[in-house]
Amino acid sequence: MRLPKHIGIIPDGNRRWAVREGMEKADGYDHGISPGMELYRMCCEMGIEEMTFYGFTVDNTKRPSAQRQAFTKACVAAVEELSREDASLLVLGNTNSAVFPAELLPYTIRHDFGKGGMKINFLVNYSWQWDLGLKNGIIGPCLKTKEVPRIDLIIRWGGRSRLSGFLPVQSVYSDLYVVEDYWPDFKREHVEAALAWYDAQDVTLGG
Amino acid sequence: MRLPKHIGIIPDGNRRWAVREGMEKADGYDHGISPGMELYRMCCEMGIEEMTFYGFTVDNTKRPSAQRQAFTKACVAAVEELSREDASLLVLGNTNSAVFPAELLPYTIRHDFGKGGMKINFLVNYSWQWDLGLKNGIIGPCLKTKEVPRIDLIIRWGGRSRLSGFLPVQSVYSDLYVVEDYWPDFKREHVEAALAWYDAQDVTLGG
Repeated sequence: MRLPKHIGIIPDGNRRWAVREGMEKADGYDHGISPGMELYRMCCEMGIEEMTFYGFTVDNTKRPSAQRQAFTKACVAAVEELSREDASLLVLGNTNSAVFPAELLPYTIRHDFGKGGMKINFLVNYSWQWDLGLKNGIIGPCLKTKEVPRIDLIIRWGGRSRLSGFLPVQSVYSDLYVVEDYWPDFKREHVEAALAWYDAQDVTLGG
Repeated sequence: MRLPKHIGIIPDGNRRWAVREGMEKADGYDHGISPGMELYRMCCEMGIEEMTFYGFTVDNTKRPSAQRQAFTKACVAAVEELSREDASLLVLGNTNSAVFPAELLPYTIRHDFGKGGMKINFLVNYSWQWDLGLKNGIIGPCLKTKEVPRIDLIIRWGGRSRLSGFLPVQSVYSDLYVVEDYWPDFKREHVEAALAWYDAQDVTLGG
């Protein structure tokens, strides 16, 4: 089976899941941490070389404060859990902002944890405008995420078929697979189906 | 029904269609012109404000010469047909190249044809690297397509769920709808289904 080298993860649907379960929207994020760890371990076992997780974005921070606090806390917890595994871990996002969690500043330089191994990029307070250096219609001079390579497969949970600002340059040739289930309803079968689908796609890189 | 203001069109599958019909791959493109005109007229009737067509890309020009000539000819014919309708028409792409068709140079400045009306952007010898001004890891200073606004809905024919380099910045929040049929098998029902699906999506612009 042809496996993707680099998988992007858009873990959407935490709030809709919480509402369905009779909880407050903000309560959904806490239920997104253990799916992330299960996904990470599954991809490690399969030998996936690199993963990029869409933590939270600058756009997301305009939500009510209880939600902002909840998804920030969940991202901090996820990065800290990953740092106790074997991984080469990097957090990327706009650190020049009061909403960037101080606990994650040490992770904005790549470090090997445990035995190192899979590269993990975790986007925190990310925005495509920040990434492109967009200001008054001018972009550049570099991508802020230039050390993140092309993404082969993006898996998005929660039924939406869109990128929502996720790494526009690294996604130009990505195959996008949409899982209808919400992220906290993560199942290994979602990933197995995504990988089987990816294996059936051709690779043309636009050619 | 909530209609998209700006629709992006990725008319993929011309070569697979030709092979299925027992033709040479290059023969498929000629069969993609009349679907485009039917789609344009359909969107005009519905009052869609703007459409962007993925003509051909710099990546595509690496294909065998018979194919390159065939898709270039089809794009020239499509732009010339559109210029006989009511439209505000602009061709965008890398004109500093021998493969950019000279016949289309006059269209690289926006003109109103007929009564004007729907804005049409037609990408010819386009590449995302050209658009971003990417050279040796440096981008900018501006998007070459900066006058093309955000795209609400992208409809891609031919079954692939990817952007293939299509306007990465204008696509950051786009909903992507995939039609399994090949582009020369265009049916109005494809667009009706895409618009009904789009109407059922929420608009968050990443928020």
